[in-house]
Amino acid sequence: MKQLVKPLLAVLALTAASATFAQQAPKPEQIIKWRQSVYQVLAWNNGRIKASVDGTYNKDEVIRAANAIAAIANSGLGALYPAGTETGKGWRETTVKPELFTDTAKAGEAARKFVTESNELAKVAATGDAAAVKVAFGKLGATCKGCHDDFRKKD
Amino acid sequence: MKQLVKPLLAVLALTAASATFAQQAPKPEQIIKWRQSVYQVLAWNNGRIKASVDGTYNKDEVIRAANAIAAIANSGLGALYPAGTETGKGWRETTVKPELFTDTAKAGEAARKFVTESNELAKVAATGDAAAVKVAFGKLGATCKGCHDDFRKKD
Repeated sequence: MKQLVKPLLAVLALTAASATFAQQAPKPEQIIKWRQSVYQVLAWNNGRIKASVDGTYNKDEVIRAANAIAAIANSGLGALYPAGTETGKGWRETTVKPELFTDTAKAGEAARKFVTESNELAKVAATGDAAAVKVAFGKLGATCKGCHDDFRKKD
Repeated sequence: MKQLVKPLLAVLALTAASATFAQQAPKPEQIIKWRQSVYQVLAWNNGRIKASVDGTYNKDEVIRAANAIAAIANSGLGALYPAGTETGKGWRETTVKPELFTDTAKAGEAARKFVTESNELAKVAATGDAAAVKVAFGKLGATCKGCHDDFRKKD
């Protein structure tokens, strides 16, 4: 009997753990909604920096926006692209291309570039050097565009 | 003639500036979409910290999530509540209560508490002290709930 109890307990524990995980694991639609939201927040902050770069420079505004972009870039966005979210609807149908899930080396490299340029922009923003921010902002924008070209379907 | 030119130029300049602003100013629907997205990104990161606090603690995960929350909290979210966005549809109809736009003292105080507790959580997260993170996370959650109770309609 004792020999049977241990495996049985193990199975029960595993089942309980799986049930807990199933309860807690966010649904694909929720994950897609989160990632669509991430890009909206990035777009908002991108626009704030653009307004400073193209118009009257506001050092504090640029710092706040650049820090938000950098913190989001460093937050581990890869977690928002698990298997099972290749298609589906969050706020709307996802526009991700299948290549993001298959060409993981290329996707990882794109993500690393985004992190690098976001960190650089946040660093430069802190100095208040508008000309340097313009350069760093341009480089960051290029990483956005590159990733969109490769991994995002046209709207 | 010369006396007339200056005021005329001033008027033209003002008109041009207004036109530029009108072109660049985001529409209310876009602003509402941005702020709805902000709360989704906060919810995502909140869930990541909760998973660590309630389950197996992952220091790096908590740091990344706490830094994202703090950077967003410090990014100047008040800018996402301009006049004209009391009602309207972003991703969906806004759930903001009119009080946020009328009781600005209370709304400002709620925002300041959110910033304070977000910064505290990010500071504590960096130490990796799971028990201290649990306390700070609880305090941050209370500021979220307080603001929702006062300024957000029930879904």
